[in-house]
Amino acid sequence: MEKTESKIFLTGIKPTGSPHIGNWLGAIRPALEAAASFEARYFIADYHALNSVKDPAALRRNTYEVAAAWMACGLDPQKTLFYRQSDIPQVFELATLLSAFTPKGLMNRAHAYKAAVAVNLGKGEDPDSGVNMGLYTYPVLMAADILLFDADFVPVGKDQVQHIEIAVDIAEAVNRNYGKEIFRLPQPFVGETTQTVTGLDGRKMSKSYNNTIPLFVGEAQLKKTVMRIVTNSQSVDEPKDPDSCSVFALYKLFASPEEQDDLAQRYRAGGMGWGDAKKTLFEKMNEALTPIRNRYEELMKNPSVIDRALNEGAQRARKIASEKMEKVRRVVGL
Amino acid sequence: MEKTESKIFLTGIKPTGSPHIGNWLGAIRPALEAAASFEARYFIADYHALNSVKDPAALRRNTYEVAAAWMACGLDPQKTLFYRQSDIPQVFELATLLSAFTPKGLMNRAHAYKAAVAVNLGKGEDPDSGVNMGLYTYPVLMAADILLFDADFVPVGKDQVQHIEIAVDIAEAVNRNYGKEIFRLPQPFVGETTQTVTGLDGRKMSKSYNNTIPLFVGEAQLKKTVMRIVTNSQSVDEPKDPDSCSVFALYKLFASPEEQDDLAQRYRAGGMGWGDAKKTLFEKMNEALTPIRNRYEELMKNPSVIDRALNEGAQRARKIASEKMEKVRRVVGL
Repeated sequence: MEKTESKIFLTGIKPTGSPHIGNWLGAIRPALEAAASFEARYFIADYHALNSVKDPAALRRNTYEVAAAWMACGLDPQKTLFYRQSDIPQVFELATLLSAFTPKGLMNRAHAYKAAVAVNLGKGEDPDSGVNMGLYTYPVLMAADILLFDADFVPVGKDQVQHIEIAVDIAEAVNRNYGKEIFRLPQPFVGETTQTVTGLDGRKMSKSYNNTIPLFVGEAQLKKTVMRIVTNSQSVDEPKDPDSCSVFALYKLFASPEEQDDLAQRYRAGGMGWGDAKKTLFEKMNEALTPIRNRYEELMKNPSVIDRALNEGAQRARKIASEKMEKVRRVVGL
Repeated sequence: MEKTESKIFLTGIKPTGSPHIGNWLGAIRPALEAAASFEARYFIADYHALNSVKDPAALRRNTYEVAAAWMACGLDPQKTLFYRQSDIPQVFELATLLSAFTPKGLMNRAHAYKAAVAVNLGKGEDPDSGVNMGLYTYPVLMAADILLFDADFVPVGKDQVQHIEIAVDIAEAVNRNYGKEIFRLPQPFVGETTQTVTGLDGRKMSKSYNNTIPLFVGEAQLKKTVMRIVTNSQSVDEPKDPDSCSVFALYKLFASPEEQDDLAQRYRAGGMGWGDAKKTLFEKMNEALTPIRNRYEELMKNPSVIDRALNEGAQRARKIASEKMEKVRRVVGL
C-alpha cells in the first residue's frame, strides 16, 4: 500500500491481559501493517478497562503487558504515536462536551448495553442490573478518543462498526450546531485480510472458549499447549485429511506454501502420527514466535523502557489533543 | 460563626444569565456569608450549562455576567478559590473514573431525569425523547466537582439534596473497592436563613414565573419594574394590610425594623396610595443595590479583571485538583 500520510489511522487497545496467537494474527499484525500505510495513532484504553478491572495491580500489569506485546510485535513508538488514554486529560473533557450533544436514545441502542439488558431480562432481573455508567457511556468516551485525534479510519470488528456510526452521529450533531467542520468524520476500517485463527478445540481461538495458544509463553509451555490440540482418533498408519485438521489449519498460518505442501503430502501418505504433526507445527510456530517472545521478555524485564516510550508518546499526543481541544472550546464558547 | 478553616464549603454556580433579587438574597448572599466561616471553593459550572446553552456567545456572556455578579456581591477571589469548571481538566477525568463505579440504576432514579421522563410519557412520547447524555450523567459530573475538591459541605436547595446523596454513594463505592478513604464524604448544607423572596405577582420570585426584579438593571429600569408589582385595588384613602402585600414583603428584605414599622403604620393609617408605597420600596431597594450595581458595571466594562481573577483561581484550583487526581490514579492503578 502506498503511504497516504494525510490519512489518520487510530487504534484503541484494551489492556485485558497478555494476547494469544489469534489476537496477534487477527488484530495486532494487520493493525501494524496498516500503520505502515497511514499516520498511525495507537493508544492503550486503560480507562475503558477500568470498567471491568477493579484491581489496581492487575490494571497496571495488563497495561505493561499489552504495551510490551505491541512493541514486541513491531510497533515502533518513534514512528507510531503510542500513548495511554489516561495520560490525555483532553479525552475526558471532550467526552463531557460530546455528552451535551448525544441523545440518550443513541446509548439505549448500543449493542453492548442492549446485550447486557437482554441477559438481565432473561434472568427476570431489573434491565439495568449490574450495568455501570462506564459501560453505558462507553460509546461517548470512544467517540472522544476518535474525534480528538482526527481519525479517518478506525479498525474494528463487525460488531463494533456501530461505535463508529455513533461517533459520526455525535460529530455531525456538533458540526451542525455550530455550522463548522469541527470534527472529522471517521470511517470503520474492516480489514480484508483479517484471519480467523483456529483454537485448540477447532473453534475460533478466543479467551471466552478457553482454547487459546498464548503468544508469549516459554518454549516448553508452548510445546505442551500445541500437544493439547484436539485431533481425531486415526491411527499412525491411516492417511489423514489436512483440510479438516486444526493442527494443519494453524500450520498454514506460519509455513510457506512449499512447507504446507510437504506437510499435506505427509498427511495424505499415512504413516505420520498426530504427535509428529504437532511437533512439526510446534517447531514452525516456535521459530516465528521466538524473536517476538525474546523482545517481549526483554521489555517486561525493563518496564522503564515501556514507561519512557509511553511517556514520550503522551507528550506528543497531549500536544495534538490540547491544540484540538482549544479549537473546540473556542467554537462552543468556553 | 467561628471560622472552621478545616471544613471545605464548595458551591457550583450555573451561568444561566444575570441574577435577580431572589438569587441574591436566597443564594448568593447566604453563600458569601458561609464563605466567611469555611474554606470556600466556588466554581462556575460552565460545562453543566453547555447542556442547555448551545450558543457560544451566550455561554461566554453568561459566564462573565455570573462571575461579575458574584464579585460585585462581595466574593473576594483573593480569599475564596474562584474558578471555571472548564479550566480544571481533572474534573472530567474524575467523572470518567467515577462512571466505572456508578450503577446505572442510580442515574435512573435522579429527580431531573425522572421529571424529563414523566413529561415525555405525559405527552405520549418516548421516555428519553429530547434527553441528552449531559443531562442524564449530570449527577456523575457533579460528584466529580465535589469529590475532587474534598468538599465537606455543599449548599443545595431541598430538591438537590439527592445529588449529594448520589455523590456519597459513588464515593463510598470507590472507597470500599480499594479499602481506602480516597474520597471525603460531602454533606448537603441547607441554609437555615434562606429567604423566600416574593416576585412581582406575589408568587416566589423565579425566572420561570417571569416575575423577577433583576439585580443589575439601571435605576430607571428598576423603578419601572417596582412599579409593576401587583397590588389589590384599594383606593388611596383606605387603610391597607401590610402583611398581605407584595410591596411590603419586599420592603422587609431591605429596611430596618424601625423603617418597617413606619411603613406598616402608613399602610394601616390609610391615605397612602400604592404608588407611594412602591416609591418608598424603590428608594430603599435602590439604596442597597446601587453600590453592587456600580461594582458590577465596572467589572463588565473591564472583563480582563474577571479573566485575571478566574485565571488565577484556575491555577490554584488545578494545583489542588492535580494533587488529588494523582493520589486517586495511584490507588486505582493508572
